[in-house]
Amino acid sequence: MSKLYCIGVGPGDPELITLKGYKRLKECDTIFCPTARKGKESIALSIARSIIEERSVKPKIIELVFPMVKDKSMLEDAWKNNAKIIAEECTDNSVYLCVGDPSLYSTFSYIYKELKNYDIDVEIIPGIASMLSFAAETKISLAEGDDILTIIPACYDLDRAMKVADASNTLIFLKDGRYFANVMKVLKNSKFKKGRLAIAEDVSSNTSKALITDISSIKDIPVEKYFSIMVVKDE
Amino acid sequence: MSKLYCIGVGPGDPELITLKGYKRLKECDTIFCPTARKGKESIALSIARSIIEERSVKPKIIELVFPMVKDKSMLEDAWKNNAKIIAEECTDNSVYLCVGDPSLYSTFSYIYKELKNYDIDVEIIPGIASMLSFAAETKISLAEGDDILTIIPACYDLDRAMKVADASNTLIFLKDGRYFANVMKVLKNSKFKKGRLAIAEDVSSNTSKALITDISSIKDIPVEKYFSIMVVKDE
Repeated sequence: MSKLYCIGVGPGDPELITLKGYKRLKECDTIFCPTARKGKESIALSIARSIIEERSVKPKIIELVFPMVKDKSMLEDAWKNNAKIIAEECTDNSVYLCVGDPSLYSTFSYIYKELKNYDIDVEIIPGIASMLSFAAETKISLAEGDDILTIIPACYDLDRAMKVADASNTLIFLKDGRYFANVMKVLKNSKFKKGRLAIAEDVSSNTSKALITDISSIKDIPVEKYFSIMVVKDE
Repeated sequence: MSKLYCIGVGPGDPELITLKGYKRLKECDTIFCPTARKGKESIALSIARSIIEERSVKPKIIELVFPMVKDKSMLEDAWKNNAKIIAEECTDNSVYLCVGDPSLYSTFSYIYKELKNYDIDVEIIPGIASMLSFAAETKISLAEGDDILTIIPACYDLDRAMKVADASNTLIFLKDGRYFANVMKVLKNSKFKKGRLAIAEDVSSNTSKALITDISSIKDIPVEKYFSIMVVKDE
């Protein structure tokens, strides 16, 4: 039976992979990795690159294209096609690489559903999610004691976000920094107006910048990048 | 200047520590680890034990007692005392061990605030949170696409939990499994009544058991342990 290990490679620093993932990367014979378009290097692969380079016998690397579109049928075609490629190429010691953790907003969740149509044994190895490494870098505790923590990936849907905000102690906004200025306007009229904020753009890259401040003192939100993170606390 | 690395050692499997944490554990000269009472082995230490045993020169191990009480002044005394012990014993290559990740419901957040009174450089190394390894083991994706994910550590406060439930797609209840039966009664009258549920007790131990089922088909909740996790999805 073919065996596929899905490895969360973490947020960017190659040393933030787990020992379990590291061992698999040193031993596997085939690596599948997602990329947004053909010819563009997979971010997950670039994180794992230094570990792969330590090997004398190199694994086969297969990039799978997941287009960055919202069209549901195009996405479903990509999931089906990529699952088929995996099924054809999967050995008894293959790995699939995910940035961050495979269970949090990962393309692997769709691929996994498709792989149920094939005879492949899947094992998932968790990874450090970007919000955890961001918290470590900025030394913010995301939640303490009885705190309710809510993760909001689509900050353009502010009505929904604000429904959870009132009963939460910490909000984590992920992904689209272009909407953070709108989010701030709403937060300034919420129970978070006296709270603290930490924000970063280009998370998990060398150009990453972080800002930690009081929400009340925010004038402009400088973040306009897609890969961004914002943590808001009501303390 | 003294240097303290706070390492998230992950949920229980020693191979789920990060490479970065592993390297620190192999090189440090002093290890601080929390325990609930004197003489009871630290869970964090037991996770790291096999890595420490690989070393020829053993580090000094200092257990810090954090009593499992709700009394605020007793807790504050423990944080202050333990920070003082760390300040006195910290070298330029010490580590503090945390189960899971240091930024999520960890005692380290309180210790870190106290350590600001001392001249200690702190670096935090993130770890795999138990909810991520639970998701990996049960092959549940915690959140996809635009899903809002909410983490609720205190399920005895059901009013507050239900305020966030309505606008969330996934709820993760942590810690106290003795309240899970009450949570289920409320969920059966919510938008989650047609959803799925995954539940485990004794997470991160050999006796860990997991149950995955439809919420509508739940009759009895078997979980009565303190260290428990329940994931509820509205799909």
